[in-house]
Amino acid sequence: MPQEDRLERQLRFVEEMDRLKQVRRQTLLMDASRPETSAEHSWHVAVMALVLAEYAGGEGLDLLRVLQMLLLHDIVEIDAGDTYCYDPEGLRDQAERESRAADRIFGLLPSDQGRRLQALWEEYEGRQTPEARFAHALDCLQPLLHNIHTRGKSWKGHGIRRHQVLERNQEARRGAPALWTLAVRLIDQAVKQGLLAE
Amino acid sequence: MPQEDRLERQLRFVEEMDRLKQVRRQTLLMDASRPETSAEHSWHVAVMALVLAEYAGGEGLDLLRVLQMLLLHDIVEIDAGDTYCYDPEGLRDQAERESRAADRIFGLLPSDQGRRLQALWEEYEGRQTPEARFAHALDCLQPLLHNIHTRGKSWKGHGIRRHQVLERNQEARRGAPALWTLAVRLIDQAVKQGLLAE
Repeated sequence: MPQEDRLERQLRFVEEMDRLKQVRRQTLLMDASRPETSAEHSWHVAVMALVLAEYAGGEGLDLLRVLQMLLLHDIVEIDAGDTYCYDPEGLRDQAERESRAADRIFGLLPSDQGRRLQALWEEYEGRQTPEARFAHALDCLQPLLHNIHTRGKSWKGHGIRRHQVLERNQEARRGAPALWTLAVRLIDQAVKQGLLAE
Repeated sequence: MPQEDRLERQLRFVEEMDRLKQVRRQTLLMDASRPETSAEHSWHVAVMALVLAEYAGGEGLDLLRVLQMLLLHDIVEIDAGDTYCYDPEGLRDQAERESRAADRIFGLLPSDQGRRLQALWEEYEGRQTPEARFAHALDCLQPLLHNIHTRGKSWKGHGIRRHQVLERNQEARRGAPALWTLAVRLIDQAVKQGLLAE
């Protein structure tokens, strides 16, 4: 591929990324003024990785790979939309919708690069490596912090209960044991304070 | 510092980060529907670094450091607000306002970590290393792409002229020579199409 075509395709991808700023999540900003966008969420969890890397399970975490995964983890939502993690309807065909989206979106890139970045996205989805598990732990912890700051507004709006939040945050158990301990403590406090149903 | 206090301070910092989602930039989303937030911008330029790293000037770019810088480069705006890059009034005391903000915000972290991350922010501001220069080049290129997509709406609104955009994108010359060539081409096209004043 001539160098110019290569850069052309990369710019096309960069421009496509702008659309993730239009995807709204169920999570509200901490002052509850509006839902956050998936682009904002992706930035926030990447900063969390910088700050909380020392709590990742296992030795020798590859932080660069964690950051790459977190920056890319939600870009499939450009096509597939944000699927609320407690919505059984949405979860049913989520994998299929997102996999189609990944093929299209990473397919905008020069093929060597598209394959490499899509493999990172698949590693994240597979949750098998320490990096993917740690990244997932942060992806769960972030909305938990937001829910606590907004007095459980999003939980209450969807009738979410303690066991659902615990189950979802299980991810953190292997990916970041100290953050799992923290999550359990925060969830129990939230129940005591009436932010989350027992 | 006991381990619990350490995590407590790190969480305080993570929560503070949420406020960058409230800072609105002069740059509009590519469909011109609203200004983007500084959190969204920070995510977008970090993804650009992933995709465009091969165009960085010099050998052996440390991509992890580039990503860390880009994720953190605007967090001082939580206190100092977004300073429009063509506003001479705002630029006059920008450095001082942002330096005060950096002291407060990085000061939320445990001191070893705060110092390390603030040093990355200072490296970015200093524009002396290949990583900082490349990061700056992307920070300039991104609003240029947005302006072209919105038919120069933000340029026109502020009466910006060709020489100002060229000057601002000079950053890219050393940081990413191939992207500088691209920027010049895009700027010239924008002038021809009447999106940018000569």
